[in-house]
Amino acid sequence: MIIFGKNSVLEAVRSGKTFNEITIEKGLKDKAIQEIINFARETGVKLDFVSKELLQRKVRAQGQKPNLQGVVAEIVDFEYSSLEALLEEGGNLILILDGVKDPHNLGAIVRTAECAGANGIIIPKRRSCQVNETVVKTSAGAISNVKIARVGNLQNAISKLKENGFWAYAVEVGGEDIFSSNLSGKIALVLGSEGEGVGRLVKESCDGIVTIPMFGKINSLNVSVAAAISAFEVVRQRTKK
Amino acid sequence: MIIFGKNSVLEAVRSGKTFNEITIEKGLKDKAIQEIINFARETGVKLDFVSKELLQRKVRAQGQKPNLQGVVAEIVDFEYSSLEALLEEGGNLILILDGVKDPHNLGAIVRTAECAGANGIIIPKRRSCQVNETVVKTSAGAISNVKIARVGNLQNAISKLKENGFWAYAVEVGGEDIFSSNLSGKIALVLGSEGEGVGRLVKESCDGIVTIPMFGKINSLNVSVAAAISAFEVVRQRTKK
Repeated sequence: MIIFGKNSVLEAVRSGKTFNEITIEKGLKDKAIQEIINFARETGVKLDFVSKELLQRKVRAQGQKPNLQGVVAEIVDFEYSSLEALLEEGGNLILILDGVKDPHNLGAIVRTAECAGANGIIIPKRRSCQVNETVVKTSAGAISNVKIARVGNLQNAISKLKENGFWAYAVEVGGEDIFSSNLSGKIALVLGSEGEGVGRLVKESCDGIVTIPMFGKINSLNVSVAAAISAFEVVRQRTKK
Repeated sequence: MIIFGKNSVLEAVRSGKTFNEITIEKGLKDKAIQEIINFARETGVKLDFVSKELLQRKVRAQGQKPNLQGVVAEIVDFEYSSLEALLEEGGNLILILDGVKDPHNLGAIVRTAECAGANGIIIPKRRSCQVNETVVKTSAGAISNVKIARVGNLQNAISKLKENGFWAYAVEVGGEDIFSSNLSGKIALVLGSEGEGVGRLVKESCDGIVTIPMFGKINSLNVSVAAAISAFEVVRQRTKK
């Protein structure tokens, strides 16, 4: 759906709507526009700056009368869950993504989470890729079956999970071999961003660090691959005879 | 590197060079051009048809004098291994990809193979994505450390691997739970194309089928994720205490 006008777009930003892209008139700089730009940059929403004429053409193509105030946005039909709704699911595997930036990776992780029978995924509201059309497409339909909760603070979310009987493990270098770790019970796996891994404070709020053993020279696993190997190690330990 | 002219491009096709893209003058149709088009379509090389003028501009931008005969190609600096060279490595994990089409998936599998310490990857010469710039980029540097062999016939390659002491397992639905399977010794894992899985004849030439257990509704794992889970299950069984 196309929305436009500073207030409409800001309202959508503040109420947590899912954006596919935001287009802003070149040269505009006021407080509202700046808040929208900051939001787009922090959440990885596609952001374009175009001339007034091109901006108007964007909306006219949708058959609406333009009263744009310099901003047009496309929002996606996707509803995030609350952390509470995710916990009410009653499952015992949750993936926490600490700042995954690439929508292909987020989509791939949603797809894997569905196969592994995870009850959901937790992402932070800021400094993380949000659900957009690329995520939906890459998930290959799995997005309809996997709850995604957005939270303001991952450490608080991890505390809440612990109160609910979960064990939280950061999947990172320098920890215990994941294949020798006990991953029975309710497990939350924390995966870091593509460049920087799991943040220090988030790591400290975990019960432990588990490490995928590697045998190459470069030894850099894609985050969606690390998520898959660790989620299915949980599956393996649960299903082994 | 940019090459052009029917003979140069055909020679590169026949000697197994790695193509990034091929551009052909619109409307041309002779035997040589048709062979080049067929090659591009079967191997997933990016193929464009442009006007004579645009084709000439493509080469002029590289500072060369155009004598194009209707075809310009960009080849990549990458050398495939022979199956023999791959076997001489002496390792004990090989991934065989039966018709993976998406270069992002091939690149991701190369990256994972490096981390798992695999000695290499085998792909078929036809009906499969070949190494191109997207593969190189997605592999995140791992392409320099993982041998890739191209073979005319996967069944023959599997026979050869068996003669060299390998056990070949297709990773597919309907087989034995991979987490209960014995994957010790020298292992070749066979993964199928995105849409169709492992071909029947290839599957029949394997020693068995192993299956990743799934617990969702859609239950469709991306092939690069399935490759990672199965390769690291081999790693797990080898390294477990």
